[in-house]
Amino acid sequence: MQTRAALLAHARDTLGAMRREGRYREFAHLEKLTGRFPVYRWHAPQGVKEVTVWSSNDYLGMGNHPAVLEATVKAVAEHGAGAGGTRNISGTSPLIAALEAELASLHGKAGALLFGSGYIANDAAISSVLDALPGFWVFSDAKNHASMIAGMRHAKGATRVIWKHNDLADLEAKLAAAPADAPKLIAFESVYSMDGDIAPIHAICDLAERYGAVTYLDEVHAVGLYGQHGGGVSERDGATHRLDLIEGTLAKGFGVFGGYVAGDAELVDFIRSVAGGLIFTTSLPPAVAAAALASVRALKQDNARRERMAERSAALKAALDAAGLPRIKAPSHIVPVMVGEAELCRQVARRLLEEHSIYATPINYPTVPRGTERLRLCATPFHTDAMIAELIQALRAVLPAHRASLAAE
Amino acid sequence: MQTRAALLAHARDTLGAMRREGRYREFAHLEKLTGRFPVYRWHAPQGVKEVTVWSSNDYLGMGNHPAVLEATVKAVAEHGAGAGGTRNISGTSPLIAALEAELASLHGKAGALLFGSGYIANDAAISSVLDALPGFWVFSDAKNHASMIAGMRHAKGATRVIWKHNDLADLEAKLAAAPADAPKLIAFESVYSMDGDIAPIHAICDLAERYGAVTYLDEVHAVGLYGQHGGGVSERDGATHRLDLIEGTLAKGFGVFGGYVAGDAELVDFIRSVAGGLIFTTSLPPAVAAAALASVRALKQDNARRERMAERSAALKAALDAAGLPRIKAPSHIVPVMVGEAELCRQVARRLLEEHSIYATPINYPTVPRGTERLRLCATPFHTDAMIAELIQALRAVLPAHRASLAAE
Ligand SMILES: Cc1ncc(COP(=O)(O)O)c(C=O)c1O
Ligand SMILES: Cc1ncc(COP(=O)(O)O)c(C=O)c1O
Repeated sequence: MQTRAALLAHARDTLGAMRREGRYREFAHLEKLTGRFPVYRWHAPQGVKEVTVWSSNDYLGMGNHPAVLEATVKAVAEHGAGAGGTRNISGTSPLIAALEAELASLHGKAGALLFGSGYIANDAAISSVLDALPGFWVFSDAKNHASMIAGMRHAKGATRVIWKHNDLADLEAKLAAAPADAPKLIAFESVYSMDGDIAPIHAICDLAERYGAVTYLDEVHAVGLYGQHGGGVSERDGATHRLDLIEGTLAKGFGVFGGYVAGDAELVDFIRSVAGGLIFTTSLPPAVAAAALASVRALKQDNARRERMAERSAALKAALDAAGLPRIKAPSHIVPVMVGEAELCRQVARRLLEEHSIYATPINYPTVPRGTERLRLCATPFHTDAMIAELIQALRAVLPAHRASLAAE
Repeated sequence: MQTRAALLAHARDTLGAMRREGRYREFAHLEKLTGRFPVYRWHAPQGVKEVTVWSSNDYLGMGNHPAVLEATVKAVAEHGAGAGGTRNISGTSPLIAALEAELASLHGKAGALLFGSGYIANDAAISSVLDALPGFWVFSDAKNHASMIAGMRHAKGATRVIWKHNDLADLEAKLAAAPADAPKLIAFESVYSMDGDIAPIHAICDLAERYGAVTYLDEVHAVGLYGQHGGGVSERDGATHRLDLIEGTLAKGFGVFGGYVAGDAELVDFIRSVAGGLIFTTSLPPAVAAAALASVRALKQDNARRERMAERSAALKAALDAAGLPRIKAPSHIVPVMVGEAELCRQVARRLLEEHSIYATPINYPTVPRGTERLRLCATPFHTDAMIAELIQALRAVLPAHRASLAAE
């Protein structure tokens, strides 16, 4: 068989089908502008123009924070651009060790372990834990992120059971149906990034206790944003001590790059010692660790920024509701506006960008189920009332009127 | 079952066994010092002291290059610390697009795709390709890196066949034994990072042509270092056009962070469109992309630096040989010194560090097979004759005499 020809034909067919279904992704080239956030420069084939970005995951604008920028520049000047090695091969900068200590303390845990990203943290930590004991059963919320699913799939022999999203009765039924003597892990998120809803952490921990399960919580969309020190929803809810592993990212609320897990010292040391996704890859650059450290420290004490985000978020939601625009109602800072069709979603986003200088990401399959395509909006502390007003006007102009009926769903 | 107790007991047992076998890894805290490379500051419990590092993968010292540092600082000032989103969610900085174009051109390919690391690039690209056609057979060199093996394992249904390291007859026999109508991929590296030997790229491509296989080459330890423009061994050997996908890192020869694949435009676009390890993770910070871009561009024109590395490498090898020290003979810049026992290897490395202010990483299982534990040395353009002399003296002091017999193997 001529594999090359077959592979290229398959690539062409797949890309063609994606184009026909309106789910071929073109990445807009967007230039972040320090000090002007959330205004970016959009580089389009027809030229460059400034746009307001409503879909950044730099939720608090920490990517612009003077202390974070200063820490980066200082670390680059002192330690250069890259780590130059894996953790074991001369790549453990004292800045990485300091960041791990800070993250452990943020979550009230004895240990924390830094990874190249939140994606790798989930993949490596979950698969390492599931490989630790024979016959593991993992109970996975139906809306868990692709990186958690990767960790479960990559485990060598765990049984994966999917429970209905945030549904305690379903989780309990499934825990009860599993063998009593099997080791069990419950894997879930605090803030679900595409719907914006929040898990009942305490109630899930109650079930974990009842059935002898360990708990794994992804706080990627919550760290920095919730809790008195930015420790996430688990801190806000006073549930930190009930979670065995808390996973987070440094790339969203903290505005930098990298991921981590925090937990019991020996469990974290075990993951450190066996996880391929940690052992066989270059460490984060010292300057990235320095930036993240500065961000975590600054946010520990900056409730004003969290409050400002909550206030801006409420203002955005109120404005959408007043305009009768179809949003999914949810308690977090994530504000999805329903469109419901891949091609339409793409068109709406394109018109916002081209005609209204507003960037809002169209979220299509495979990130959300087909038929639930949406725009995903977040108001950061830097989104002004004027920006909200412009957004509402633009959405009314580009969103077909009948779509408003989705609001009630 | 009380999973927590069982899991912690397993963690404790595993760590205990690793300690007993001498393969428990403690990461030395090493502070890179810009402008002083390869001198680092070692932060030990007993205090801080300066050491010469012989195990950096910043092979050319590009992490210190003024153009790279300047590009980082400029990009941080202009674009902040983080990307703030996945590639699709406002995270595609024009710097990332420019870097991808530069990498495609470096390898004479129409497309290139940036990932968070070389590890993820291998994992995501290999599994995406193997999932593209049913009944794929993948032929994997026995010494392939863990990240390539991850990509093969994570594919949904490919048949994996391992051929003897760099053994063309074995590869041909295995290709011939596979079904003629099955799609086939040959996956291999150019420079093998623990032994330092180099693959016969043309001869492998000959077999690929004969058996209709596509070729996947990991050039992680070669990009920046070999070829007239730093395009790796495939450039040096004039074989670039014969490889379907070339994978590399920005974290070793280029001294920064990140990974990539380069290949046919549609094949790369296909991987971009389906790979979870790309879609579901935050993009590299603009400043990291800017640094990598500056490094790739600088190295395209800096043959003097590559020549200096080759000359230093030859000097190191000659000095080891003159002293009768047991190195694995290999043509690349990687110089393994055999020790052959995990606990001894750790002790030797510890004495080098504590008594001689020299850092050389002990390489133990699972990175190399048990019984082949070694120190892995590399001479960068910045290792002086005096440093080589110090190293030789220190190795003679700490390496048991009988170990010299391993030299012949
Ligand atoms: C729930 C969740 N977990 C993990 C990740 C991965 O984090 P990172 O971007 O740091 O790889 C993401 C998104 O990127 C996410 O949405
Ligand atoms: C052969 C090989 N491929 C891939 C990688 C991974 O590259 P990165 O460090 O960029 O993740 C490494 C080592 O780190 C390697 O040795």
